[in-house]
Amino acid sequence: MSKSIFYHAGCPVCLSAEHDIIDLIGAPNVEVVHIGEDRSRIAEAEHAGVKSVPALVTPGGNVLHINFGASMADVKG
Amino acid sequence: MSKSIFYHAGCPVCLSAEHDIIDLIGAPNVEVVHIGEDRSRIAEAEHAGVKSVPALVTPGGNVLHINFGASMADVKG
Repeated sequence: MSKSIFYHAGCPVCLSAEHDIIDLIGAPNVEVVHIGEDRSRIAEAEHAGVKSVPALVTPGGNVLHINFGASMADVKG
Repeated sequence: MSKSIFYHAGCPVCLSAEHDIIDLIGAPNVEVVHIGEDRSRIAEAEHAGVKSVPALVTPGGNVLHINFGASMADVKG
């Protein structure tokens, strides 16, 4: 299985969801990207269709927006 | 691993998320509950903390609200 990508911005909701996702699908199956710290990947996340974080982009390219931590506009500041 | 429970109400957003979740965590690891059809389980979902569907309740009891299909108020009608 290709990896999913979990985008987050370090918010409490994000970290809680990160733990849950890793428990569910396994750490080797998900790349975790902190777009608050690694801002070079914000454009990539937006291109994938991420509207808010935390969000999981599946190997098939679907975006699962999980709970609601912050909008991309807030992350970009 | 205990099973997660995926609550949905048959909406297009729900069905898309259901396919993604099953792909990610495996059909044997998730019970799918259509609370639009099995209304006896609406109270159970609300008690678990489900505010909207689709939502995944993890084995640890956390609720991951995924994208947004319908509020519980809309499901109850």
